[in-house]
Amino acid sequence: MRVGVLTGGGDCPGLNAVIRAVVRRGVRDYGFEFVGFRDGWRGPLEGDAVPLDIPAVRGILPRGGTILGSSRTNPLERPDGVERVKANIAALGVDAVIAIGGINTLGYARALSDEGVPIVGVPKTIDNDIPGTDYTFGFHTAVDIATGAIDRLHTTAESHKRVLVVEVMGRRAGWIALHAGLAGGANVILVPERPFDLDRVCQWVETRFEATYAPIVCVAEGAVPADPSVIPPLPEGVNTDVPFPGVGEWLSREIEKRTGHESRATVLGHTQRGGTPSPYDRWLATRFGLNAIEAVKNGRFGQAVVLRGARIELEELSVLTGGLKLADPELYEEAEVFFG
Amino acid sequence: MRVGVLTGGGDCPGLNAVIRAVVRRGVRDYGFEFVGFRDGWRGPLEGDAVPLDIPAVRGILPRGGTILGSSRTNPLERPDGVERVKANIAALGVDAVIAIGGINTLGYARALSDEGVPIVGVPKTIDNDIPGTDYTFGFHTAVDIATGAIDRLHTTAESHKRVLVVEVMGRRAGWIALHAGLAGGANVILVPERPFDLDRVCQWVETRFEATYAPIVCVAEGAVPADPSVIPPLPEGVNTDVPFPGVGEWLSREIEKRTGHESRATVLGHTQRGGTPSPYDRWLATRFGLNAIEAVKNGRFGQAVVLRGARIELEELSVLTGGLKLADPELYEEAEVFFG
Amino acid sequence: MRVGVLTGGGDCPGLNAVIRAVVRRGVRDYGFEFVGFRDGWRGPLEGDAVPLDIPAVRGILPRGGTILGSSRTNPLERPDGVERVKANIAALGVDAVIAIGGINTLGYARALSDEGVPIVGVPKTIDNDIPGTDYTFGFHTAVDIATGAIDRLHTTAESHKRVLVVEVMGRRAGWIALHAGLAGGANVILVPERPFDLDRVCQWVETRFEATYAPIVCVAEGAVPADPSVIPPLPEGVNTDVPFPGVGEWLSREIEKRTGHESRATVLGHTQRGGTPSPYDRWLATRFGLNAIEAVKNGRFGQAVVLRGARIELEELSVLTGGLKLADPELYEEAEVFFG
Amino acid sequence: MRVGVLTGGGDCPGLNAVIRAVVRRGVRDYGFEFVGFRDGWRGPLEGDAVPLDIPAVRGILPRGGTILGSSRTNPLERPDGVERVKANIAALGVDAVIAIGGINTLGYARALSDEGVPIVGVPKTIDNDIPGTDYTFGFHTAVDIATGAIDRLHTTAESHKRVLVVEVMGRRAGWIALHAGLAGGANVILVPERPFDLDRVCQWVETRFEATYAPIVCVAEGAVPADPSVIPPLPEGVNTDVPFPGVGEWLSREIEKRTGHESRATVLGHTQRGGTPSPYDRWLATRFGLNAIEAVKNGRFGQAVVLRGARIELEELSVLTGGLKLADPELYEEAEVFFG
Repeated sequence: MRVGVLTGGGDCPGLNAVIRAVVRRGVRDYGFEFVGFRDGWRGPLEGDAVPLDIPAVRGILPRGGTILGSSRTNPLERPDGVERVKANIAALGVDAVIAIGGINTLGYARALSDEGVPIVGVPKTIDNDIPGTDYTFGFHTAVDIATGAIDRLHTTAESHKRVLVVEVMGRRAGWIALHAGLAGGANVILVPERPFDLDRVCQWVETRFEATYAPIVCVAEGAVPADPSVIPPLPEGVNTDVPFPGVGEWLSREIEKRTGHESRATVLGHTQRGGTPSPYDRWLATRFGLNAIEAVKNGRFGQAVVLRGARIELEELSVLTGGLKLADPELYEEAEVFFG
Repeated sequence: MRVGVLTGGGDCPGLNAVIRAVVRRGVRDYGFEFVGFRDGWRGPLEGDAVPLDIPAVRGILPRGGTILGSSRTNPLERPDGVERVKANIAALGVDAVIAIGGINTLGYARALSDEGVPIVGVPKTIDNDIPGTDYTFGFHTAVDIATGAIDRLHTTAESHKRVLVVEVMGRRAGWIALHAGLAGGANVILVPERPFDLDRVCQWVETRFEATYAPIVCVAEGAVPADPSVIPPLPEGVNTDVPFPGVGEWLSREIEKRTGHESRATVLGHTQRGGTPSPYDRWLATRFGLNAIEAVKNGRFGQAVVLRGARIELEELSVLTGGLKLADPELYEEAEVFFG
Repeated sequence: MRVGVLTGGGDCPGLNAVIRAVVRRGVRDYGFEFVGFRDGWRGPLEGDAVPLDIPAVRGILPRGGTILGSSRTNPLERPDGVERVKANIAALGVDAVIAIGGINTLGYARALSDEGVPIVGVPKTIDNDIPGTDYTFGFHTAVDIATGAIDRLHTTAESHKRVLVVEVMGRRAGWIALHAGLAGGANVILVPERPFDLDRVCQWVETRFEATYAPIVCVAEGAVPADPSVIPPLPEGVNTDVPFPGVGEWLSREIEKRTGHESRATVLGHTQRGGTPSPYDRWLATRFGLNAIEAVKNGRFGQAVVLRGARIELEELSVLTGGLKLADPELYEEAEVFFG
Repeated sequence: MRVGVLTGGGDCPGLNAVIRAVVRRGVRDYGFEFVGFRDGWRGPLEGDAVPLDIPAVRGILPRGGTILGSSRTNPLERPDGVERVKANIAALGVDAVIAIGGINTLGYARALSDEGVPIVGVPKTIDNDIPGTDYTFGFHTAVDIATGAIDRLHTTAESHKRVLVVEVMGRRAGWIALHAGLAGGANVILVPERPFDLDRVCQWVETRFEATYAPIVCVAEGAVPADPSVIPPLPEGVNTDVPFPGVGEWLSREIEKRTGHESRATVLGHTQRGGTPSPYDRWLATRFGLNAIEAVKNGRFGQAVVLRGARIELEELSVLTGGLKLADPELYEEAEVFFG
């Protein structure tokens, strides 16, 4: 059997660990052959593939990025996309595809699967917002980095009696803010799932100053105020895949204006999504890979590997791509006990 | 309501995070009062307690160790132990106890609970061998440290064409070895659950030298050879809470002797169980604490908080203390694809 | 003898390590007493001081921030500033002051020293731009954090064929950019000391894309283009202690516009100046403290501790405050061999 | 010009950074060609070399180990060693050799240089015991790792009222123990340069228990008791390149026996010498490489690059190999103020 592997979407620590596990088990346990498609779905669409064997995946476990490259190419945008993918796969002698990616990449996988392309999916997102799985790899690495940053900001907040606002990733779901905020001991956590009341935020800041002086506000990049009329019009040319770009900087200025306490914002940005995966994510990515190739062997096409507790299971691609997994309101309320 | 908190057994990153969450939610949401018992079950046994309030738990989230001290005291060893614990608890006006500890500490909790002491348990072990919960806090911190060490050893193995044996914690269960070995890309992983065949180990080492030269052997401190007759007699005065103390050093010498390749052993030791908890463990410990105090409020005595997937649930103390959670043979076999 | 200690200026990892070493050696070796002035020169100006002894400095070695608080208060701004400082010092029975701070804090120290206040200085800046000393503590911690961020950005640059611009601290001197850029393998490094030619930057980016695709541009926050007319007018309310606020974001947009390659900016911000000091900085800060109190004992007022090679020496405060130590052009040229 | 590069001796983070800088500057600034000798002096002795160009050194800056391999081969042990080295170098068209290594590797370099082989040396040792240079690369990485371990051990010592002995590298010089012990806040530091008095050590442990309970004893692997008669006879087959193998374990047992306080030993071992170099060491190794190839260009054979303050200078190989740079007694006394 010959299997094609591709990685699509944004960078995410653990992609290489999946590829390595897939190839290693496929070759050693099942005698499969492999090709790597380059740059996500662009590879099958354009027939761009490279050979993939055990020597090719040696040493890549701890490396961030993806040896196959990535892209956001949507093969279904082209009228002949499905046919081209099928033709290229056939021409390369590929019997099955393992698609590693986020909601978009897996969404294309699902559509192609419905058209008869034999695909097994591997969910990937640092945002942790794919349904059907407890966690995705990359997420805990992002949380580690964001928590490390919050740890560092505490001392500056304390020594300088300042508010420090830290903006973390999370466009639609606040998982990173929630986990890193809780782990870092933030005094306010703001997530996209729950529009925030600026007065309430300022109250928490004041309460914190009464007890000690180190208010850390951890805000997801996708968070928005409850009153959208306060959002200033966007400057020209600003990226708009979040409802309120620059929310962290804005919040910092508003807090300073309203409470009179000096405030500074830090935007963590891309450092959260690159670099070596954490041990947790290497373990999860490796186990996803091992189970994905087993699913291929068992002909479980149209499905994806997911984490349930400490076990890897299979789930329909339609479940993973049917919506977003938002942070549970109960979890958020649980965290509020640390606010202020 | 007045609640007593204690921490028992070996050091484990996250103990302070549990204490902080318990107190914070107890005071803010339920208006409870708290006392901290000193040094595990020695505190209730001897009536040694300190006041515990929100200022007392400020800033302890990222700190390793426990502000309450710990011990391995078994209150049941004394004939009047149960009565003394009850009397001291009554004298301090304590209505419920939160016991944070491993299998022994929770075992005493269970026995006391059977005698009518109102107790909620919080499982703790870096070894991850308590049943009924997917993971315990402290475990992923230990895996992070062990994996970081393995990452560093790879380059020495490669540059010097040596075998490097790394001995990690895990007296009865091989979870740390399995996770860190997989995450660190070890070429052989040996766990207590499966006695090892030295010839097979040497074969894997040889195979690795054929492909490249960097065999890393990750061995749990509780691993044993399948043929116990090869275990040398213990030198006088050596600690014997593992069946084969010094297994890492022995393995290193045997591999060198049998394969002719130079070999070195590193024993990670106590660095695995101290220091700041990882963000994952801060999150888990915090959520355990938040849910433990809620269980107290709801009168769920004789139970303990456990992790199931991404949720915290309650389970009978008898389930947590009824045996050891060993590493699944299937997981171990899954990992074997990376051996050699 | 009774000694007052103060910390002034921005946050800097290692301040607490200096305080601890000063107090520890002062008490144990010389039998001195100590007071801590609160919030830099505001303490002596307003007579705000706290007792300082060995128990007060226990455990603070690894902690960022400063237990004494900090401020940018200039005691010389008030007409009666010198007299008030002298009167408050006398009232507290303080015989000598150890002032730990950057160019401003040490500048006030120098002026007060000229007026007869017995002061020993300890230089502090993460920017490393104080003359007379090879390095200051805090600098290598900032370099560690910035390099860690660059390490992480590489994989995203590679996997996504993007340019990644990382803006690091350094308003007037480019030491952090130079060290972190070199240690992180950046492909372009831009420093305040040498205004940059945007065309040349784009050329380096293109060269890098030819060889591989991972151009990392490391730019100091104080860097400016050689042609200042390209600097856009500042938006209202923007902080202006650098000549071109937002240089990183601007550079990223310009590179994308001119080369056609996608580009993203990351601004590291305050994470570079808080948190636990690196071992190097703990060592340097500790040795500065040990030698500062010895200088007090020897009556070496008007001087400051400095690092020369592996030795701590004393230097006139006038030398440390007489200008800025800029990055050597030769060092910058040495680094250029890695550009492109 | 064609230059051969070799790396000899034990693993040391930064070797690859030197190789990269040498090749990069040699090719780009001077148009040189390069070959890499494999496995230290074995390469020139046996004529074993590989081509070395810019693509070959891409991406190796952050990687531990050495892409050229290493060995302890002494080319002078063979009667025809010098002639063979000369002949092989000539056969490969090599005009100059850059030898990167410790005291042994540089010692062979010096002898060959005296015989007319054109060599520039680059000093390397994690032990920091080579004279003529303030620091060597690898040292600060080892200090970082050892300090991180001590940081972790503190909480276990505190929570369990235990003594924790940590044995670090340093066979003949105590630099790592001194730096890591000081940076980690150890309560006793023992170095090879100053044989220790066990009674004094136990006194310090007791003093510490009086103030708080967390005695950390940081001992270099080469430390010895002042009274050598207490050293137990070596078990058969034990490595003897230190005067008292197992000094850490022994010390732990003796402290427990004499003070009655529980004590545990941790031996950090090879984790101190592998893995990615710290930013400081990447900077130093890179600058050593840049200056070594410039020395070749300028015909400065028989010399080596050294660090003096923040500058790289050249020094005679005879100075670097003429003895050991031991830790200054004054530094050790300075540190004693933190003991107990």
